[in-house]
Amino acid sequence: MQSNHISLKNIKINDPFWNNVCELVRREVIPYQYEALHDRVEGAEKSYCIENFVKAGRVVKALKNGESVPVYPVDKWQYTDENCDENAFHGWVFQDSDAYKWLEAVGYSLINHPDAELEKKAKEVVAVICDAQLENGYLDTLYIINDRSKVFTNLRDFHELYCFGHLAESAVSFYNATGDRRLLDAACRFADLICDTFGKDKKRGYGGHEIAEMALVRLYEQTGEQRYLDTAEFLVNERGRRPYYFDAEHGVNSKGEAYHYNQAHRPVIKQDEAVGHAVRGVYLYSGMADIAKYKNDAEIYTACKNIWSNIVNKKLYITGGIGATVDGEAFSFNYDLPNDLAYSETCASIGLIFFARRMAELNAVSDYGDVAERALYNTVLAGMSEDGKRFFYVNPLEVNPEASHKDSRKRHIKPVRQKWFACACCPPNLARLISSVGEYAFSENESTFFVHQYIGAAVQSRFGRIDIASDYTQSGKVKITAKAPVNLALRIPSWCSDYSISAPFTAKDGYAYLDGVTDVEISFDCKPKLVRCSNRVRANIGKAAVTKGAFVYCAESVDNGENLQMLTLDKNTAFEQDGEFLLADGWREEAQNALYSDFTETPKTPCKIKLHPYYRWGNRGENEMTVYLPVN
Amino acid sequence: MQSNHISLKNIKINDPFWNNVCELVRREVIPYQYEALHDRVEGAEKSYCIENFVKAGRVVKALKNGESVPVYPVDKWQYTDENCDENAFHGWVFQDSDAYKWLEAVGYSLINHPDAELEKKAKEVVAVICDAQLENGYLDTLYIINDRSKVFTNLRDFHELYCFGHLAESAVSFYNATGDRRLLDAACRFADLICDTFGKDKKRGYGGHEIAEMALVRLYEQTGEQRYLDTAEFLVNERGRRPYYFDAEHGVNSKGEAYHYNQAHRPVIKQDEAVGHAVRGVYLYSGMADIAKYKNDAEIYTACKNIWSNIVNKKLYITGGIGATVDGEAFSFNYDLPNDLAYSETCASIGLIFFARRMAELNAVSDYGDVAERALYNTVLAGMSEDGKRFFYVNPLEVNPEASHKDSRKRHIKPVRQKWFACACCPPNLARLISSVGEYAFSENESTFFVHQYIGAAVQSRFGRIDIASDYTQSGKVKITAKAPVNLALRIPSWCSDYSISAPFTAKDGYAYLDGVTDVEISFDCKPKLVRCSNRVRANIGKAAVTKGAFVYCAESVDNGENLQMLTLDKNTAFEQDGEFLLADGWREEAQNALYSDFTETPKTPCKIKLHPYYRWGNRGENEMTVYLPVN
Repeated sequence: MQSNHISLKNIKINDPFWNNVCELVRREVIPYQYEALHDRVEGAEKSYCIENFVKAGRVVKALKNGESVPVYPVDKWQYTDENCDENAFHGWVFQDSDAYKWLEAVGYSLINHPDAELEKKAKEVVAVICDAQLENGYLDTLYIINDRSKVFTNLRDFHELYCFGHLAESAVSFYNATGDRRLLDAACRFADLICDTFGKDKKRGYGGHEIAEMALVRLYEQTGEQRYLDTAEFLVNERGRRPYYFDAEHGVNSKGEAYHYNQAHRPVIKQDEAVGHAVRGVYLYSGMADIAKYKNDAEIYTACKNIWSNIVNKKLYITGGIGATVDGEAFSFNYDLPNDLAYSETCASIGLIFFARRMAELNAVSDYGDVAERALYNTVLAGMSEDGKRFFYVNPLEVNPEASHKDSRKRHIKPVRQKWFACACCPPNLARLISSVGEYAFSENESTFFVHQYIGAAVQSRFGRIDIASDYTQSGKVKITAKAPVNLALRIPSWCSDYSISAPFTAKDGYAYLDGVTDVEISFDCKPKLVRCSNRVRANIGKAAVTKGAFVYCAESVDNGENLQMLTLDKNTAFEQDGEFLLADGWREEAQNALYSDFTETPKTPCKIKLHPYYRWGNRGENEMTVYLPVN
Repeated sequence: MQSNHISLKNIKINDPFWNNVCELVRREVIPYQYEALHDRVEGAEKSYCIENFVKAGRVVKALKNGESVPVYPVDKWQYTDENCDENAFHGWVFQDSDAYKWLEAVGYSLINHPDAELEKKAKEVVAVICDAQLENGYLDTLYIINDRSKVFTNLRDFHELYCFGHLAESAVSFYNATGDRRLLDAACRFADLICDTFGKDKKRGYGGHEIAEMALVRLYEQTGEQRYLDTAEFLVNERGRRPYYFDAEHGVNSKGEAYHYNQAHRPVIKQDEAVGHAVRGVYLYSGMADIAKYKNDAEIYTACKNIWSNIVNKKLYITGGIGATVDGEAFSFNYDLPNDLAYSETCASIGLIFFARRMAELNAVSDYGDVAERALYNTVLAGMSEDGKRFFYVNPLEVNPEASHKDSRKRHIKPVRQKWFACACCPPNLARLISSVGEYAFSENESTFFVHQYIGAAVQSRFGRIDIASDYTQSGKVKITAKAPVNLALRIPSWCSDYSISAPFTAKDGYAYLDGVTDVEISFDCKPKLVRCSNRVRANIGKAAVTKGAFVYCAESVDNGENLQMLTLDKNTAFEQDGEFLLADGWREEAQNALYSDFTETPKTPCKIKLHPYYRWGNRGENEMTVYLPVN
């Protein structure tokens, strides 16, 4: 059953778990990132983001005044003091997007929590951005500063359409929060230029890093401008067609093998496996789902379902992580889910949630919400430290700090969160997702109000006010109260086999449907349990993970001693709650000093294995961590 | 107890197992490599080896005639038609060594199996090599062809001392086989130049890729020339001293971190961990053991023992492989022994055998022979296909062909042996080791004849003729017959707890000492068994390997079906011999289609697991292989 998400303006989060997370983003992440964008964080790599907008603004002004403007090369991914002129663009080619992601998060945050000072700062940033826009609507500081003549000549690598996408997303957010149209107008002007530039009888290109597709749809949702939707459809459908646009753009004639990375190896309707750069992938798939919805395109919808199925059945970590290999930050082959080499980028799980929301709105099947929940409560939340000041880009399921330090194959596996990244996609992406989490929780159609995620909130639905009081993350209890009788569709989480709903319901596709209720109490029994991974995944043979409700748990050596691999879980374990920890029964093997010896049962002593929610790991200094433990 | 190895001239191999292997090398590998050196193997990468000697010979002639000779850059590791002049040196910087390794193997082979035609071919190659030597004794075709003025200016990277080392080794072998002094004289002239060039008050350099150390000792053993031994000692002791020679050579001032790769990060007497490029490492350690022996150097001997202990207790695969990481083809950190990412280069195991032989001769402790045996019967033999025509460079303990094809992290893991390598160190290294295997089997001192490896042979010892009739690899039975009563020291393999010796003996350090015997029968019970790896090694938790005598076994999917990870060995398994295979009891799990599900015991059906000696794997097309299996 199709539905539409609900504007954040109509959702006021009030949840014992999420209030804290959102407040952390509001009080720590957003101000920290504001400083980072302005290169004022001591010891962090410079962003150059705002500086680039200021430089571009100067160029725009000079051009308006008919002054001559220098030209610098646009020939690399990252521009530094070492490799370019001080007046040229600095940072990564996609650096503009950081400001947009920050503004998008600020917009969401302001909706839920008005803050005049923050709004003032944001408006200053908006002004700097708007000043950097060329008269024709073009807005990408790399090309504006370095070489106006080269715009749209390297779509494969240089992220103009990507930056546009983030501009559009932030513009919608910021407009809805503040009513300030400036950024929305700027986004529309750039969108108009893109619509004028790309299309069947125009430039047949598409971005190397997808997002413009879903961003144009978002602008369409906001403005009703049909050409935005049509251009999004063009970008989706043109992708991967022959002759390859990226070939033509780069003067080569390839078989397209390298374009798996960009999901441009074949037309999207012929894609049925998630491949290439994982973030790019899920951003594309989200855009495809948008087109499937608004263009009622059955072929694209089928491709979305096939790709979804491939991800969740063959390429998904138990933590909701995707992208098993560091090489290309990419999806690996089916069932290749190594724990200690995982890439599992925070942004990729965020993108997976985007994709899941769209699929759930196309058809309310609980699988979508289940996977979004897995990603949200585990990999996404793990991306941020408990003080909101440090971030994981990569989210492994097993870490041995010695290996991270000494093994080049694990250089990407950081045993502690990092302060900031010059390539800072994850922290601001986290901020915008968390600040808009309500949008992923609820949807509605003409007849029904859907609860996909049990996040406490007061929602102004088309059926009137609906209050969700949620203790989902602790006791599993949720209470929903509506002003007037309402039809509800409530996702039954796949982890829960034992639940009660205080009103009659019928179950379909993993949702409980209730007719005309005003008060309903739901209780999901979230007792801890052992979960196994398919034996098609080589890394997890003989092992199990522990979950409780939405949370995956892990063992850390700070709680369990070093050499976590010497622990074994008792398959019949009871669980004991110990504050935020779980205690499980198991054994610790005696260390075997002989490298090789005749096989005998290894002596082991019973022990309590102390388990921590995965999202909280790594907050107590460098230490070993593992999600999976041998089970016996 | 110290001893000396016995010249191959005095060892005639006659062994049901080794006759075949040696014949394979003689009939297949040596002729194949002869063609490869001459670039006459269709479809194989070009070697350019002989071509370089011919080119260098022309340069030498031109120089003698006072003609001018062009100069080409010496600035890269590999010279191809694409990156250099057709008249310049071609191939890798160490390409000369392939001819030397081939000649060394030929020499050994001729000793055991005279072959006039092969000798003729070898003498032609020798002539080509000798013609390429400069008047001052210098002999390295890269510099002779490209730029005579630059010799010995990049010891770190460009392998002149390495090529010299192989020249010296081949010269000794070839001289002993044929009595032809030409190559020996050439090696001595080059050695003389090296002795004149390097030393305390001369150039304080040493090779980036070790071997010159042990090669100079070998020349010393052959010629008695003291300065060869002294220069070897200098090269050993100068290594890693500050200021770093490699720093000075390259005009940098480093902390020496990068020199771990070359074992030049600190003086050798301060080294106690095997680090860096594994082949280089064991070549150095072999040279150190030589110096410990001939210079009676206690500090170096202690370093050797420490490094040995580190390798065998913390960095050795059950197959005798070393070098766990592809990055730098290097030793990884302690206990980091991944099965599916192993490098475990064939050459590294060969070098480990060199090191082990020297250590066993310094002090007869069975550990050395045990490890040499592990390396020899598993990794080294696995390096060659059963037809002698294809070779493994890398010897993983677990292979999933899909991963090799699709996962960049496993690009080095080849699921089938390759024809030839442009960087062809392994095949000729294999040929020379196998052709000289007798040298690793026996040694003697004034009182005792040592049997380190039970290889059937007739040995002309200082105590007269000793015959070893060996069925060690099959039944574990060996019979030793001496013309006159002799004191024997027989290694008791560590895998064997149940053995009988037909004469009285005393056991010490893993050797059985017998006094004044003429006939002795030995029986080692080589029943198959399960072996476990220390639980400090994360990759092998919950798993076991199967061994029988010296051989490690593995499972291949051609025998056991795909998804080998779904097999479990029964910890109480009986074993059944089935031709060359072993059948073990176990189970195959039902494939679990759900990626994640509540933990329950996985349904499994009893099955026979068919196991193959590791060295024979991969001879039946691409397929999965694993040495370790889950055990329950």
